[in-house]
Amino acid sequence: MATLSSSPDNRQENRPVLALSGGIGGAKLALGLAHVLPDGALTVVANTGDDFEHLGLSVSPDIDTLTYVLGDLDNQQTGWGRRDETWSFMETLGALGGETWFKLGDRDLALHVERSQRLRAGETLSAITADLARRLGARDRILPMSDDPVRTQVLTADGPLDFQRYFVGMQCAPAVTGFRFAGAENAAPHPDFLGVLRDTRLRAVIICPSNPFISIDPILAVPGVRAALTACAAPIIAISPIIGGEAVKGPTAKMMRELGIAVTAASVADHYAGLIDGFIVDPGDAAMTSRAPVAIDARTVLMRSLDDKIALATATLAFADRLAREPSARRKGRMMGAA
Amino acid sequence: MATLSSSPDNRQENRPVLALSGGIGGAKLALGLAHVLPDGALTVVANTGDDFEHLGLSVSPDIDTLTYVLGDLDNQQTGWGRRDETWSFMETLGALGGETWFKLGDRDLALHVERSQRLRAGETLSAITADLARRLGARDRILPMSDDPVRTQVLTADGPLDFQRYFVGMQCAPAVTGFRFAGAENAAPHPDFLGVLRDTRLRAVIICPSNPFISIDPILAVPGVRAALTACAAPIIAISPIIGGEAVKGPTAKMMRELGIAVTAASVADHYAGLIDGFIVDPGDAAMTSRAPVAIDARTVLMRSLDDKIALATATLAFADRLAREPSARRKGRMMGAA
Repeated sequence: MATLSSSPDNRQENRPVLALSGGIGGAKLALGLAHVLPDGALTVVANTGDDFEHLGLSVSPDIDTLTYVLGDLDNQQTGWGRRDETWSFMETLGALGGETWFKLGDRDLALHVERSQRLRAGETLSAITADLARRLGARDRILPMSDDPVRTQVLTADGPLDFQRYFVGMQCAPAVTGFRFAGAENAAPHPDFLGVLRDTRLRAVIICPSNPFISIDPILAVPGVRAALTACAAPIIAISPIIGGEAVKGPTAKMMRELGIAVTAASVADHYAGLIDGFIVDPGDAAMTSRAPVAIDARTVLMRSLDDKIALATATLAFADRLAREPSARRKGRMMGAA
Repeated sequence: MATLSSSPDNRQENRPVLALSGGIGGAKLALGLAHVLPDGALTVVANTGDDFEHLGLSVSPDIDTLTYVLGDLDNQQTGWGRRDETWSFMETLGALGGETWFKLGDRDLALHVERSQRLRAGETLSAITADLARRLGARDRILPMSDDPVRTQVLTADGPLDFQRYFVGMQCAPAVTGFRFAGAENAAPHPDFLGVLRDTRLRAVIICPSNPFISIDPILAVPGVRAALTACAAPIIAISPIIGGEAVKGPTAKMMRELGIAVTAASVADHYAGLIDGFIVDPGDAAMTSRAPVAIDARTVLMRSLDDKIALATATLAFADRLAREPSARRKGRMMGAA
């Protein structure tokens, strides 16, 4: 986009940037990055572990949220779906006794019907995603982590639950004991995902402030992704989704409690230990996070306005540029390994 | 329904009545019958040759039109779809580059999605149709001619065309040379269709003023239907869809011209020769139709208002009751055959 408030540095810098994202939390930072980077620089790799088949349709919630946010169509009240939505389909489906636990707006539905149709016709999820996002006005690249199906299951004392059934159907009520990414073992990372990671011009890999367990871990579970990240020459920065012991949105904090993990930004840094070079936390979380073996940058990570998103994106890129000049343990290891 | 203008005779008469119908032309008379017959008396057998798979959904246009008309949800301007419709889905599908030649409203779409979902789950089309029609307020029974797929193809000089592609996509432009009802040879009539025809209490079989070639012939093409009609004890009455050399709606007249058939009510009587006992024509068409070897009843067959529909339904039943007292050639033959 490169329209508002982008610093001269970012506008002039057209090296590629890769972001890993789940739904709304990550999409907010992706939007900030889209605003400060020149067209074509940003690739957002989307978690597809949330994808599911519903009413005979292939639904990709994180891809869709990214598409709507980057296409300036998103509903900022709900954090999902479109803001110019109508609900006639859902109302009538209810009258017909159909399944209404997963809300599908009339316009949103067109995306699922068209994607499902093209998948049946043999197109890849990535090709469909690129075309539909472009048609909806999202100019930055949204890349599914894989064209192969990966389906997150939430493990509970009562057995595994399909992700959307847990997340939307049961409103995250069951206590979590772990996660399974069904299909991940047979999935291949999208070749362009690996291609960007191998690009010697890559400026930064940014792990968005998404839920580590259900938004980022599915991406990391695809065979080859961790190795490609470890081998990547660019700084890898994560932004904490935990601020002052609470998640901005969603079940991250609840999951951490249930898993016996302290609900702190430091725990998130530990979760990504060995993978990231830098970690951005809220100033209030900086002191306790300083023990983590990564570079820490403390700044406001809560994104309410577009200006907040742009400011965090700008700061993240500046942090990455700074780290690029000061090789981290991972990047030193990578260079020694290569030597 | 038995609410408006029904004569005491019809209200008291709760013997079953069977109507064969396509879309809007037949549905108008079905609505009239629904108003004059007691609840539970009317079964409308719907043509399913128009059914097709579109955008991954199972669409049943004639069943849907009957459902909307009998549920008082129909759009009387278009003759298809619902009157309380919204179009967000279709607008967005267009923006996404999807197929928009077949218009699916947001509420209408719910019917197709739910039907498709239940078909995939193994329910029969008839069970789904009955449940969805009931939920939408249609109290009379709508019965697919068969639970097995039959797909009408329109034969043209350039080869066969799938029906909806011809009818909606090409607006009936290609000249017709004939019709094929793919799958009919392996389809079974719905058991309840045959059951009603065998019912000794059956009051009348009414062939609605639908297109003979594409609405009624597919029903007659299902193995066993013609024989069951021939063996049926009740009078069989057809109502002309041709008035003064023109069809009220749709391509009936155009098809007749292309097939080299005179566009007259008499041609329709000939089309049903040997099958029907009585034929109802507009007064202006009575003279030339009188040569047909069936009983003729002349009265206004154009149905604009609900009163028109009720009047034609009442007259059709009275005609059937009159014919029941004067055995026709077919019914004499049937009785002699049985002797």
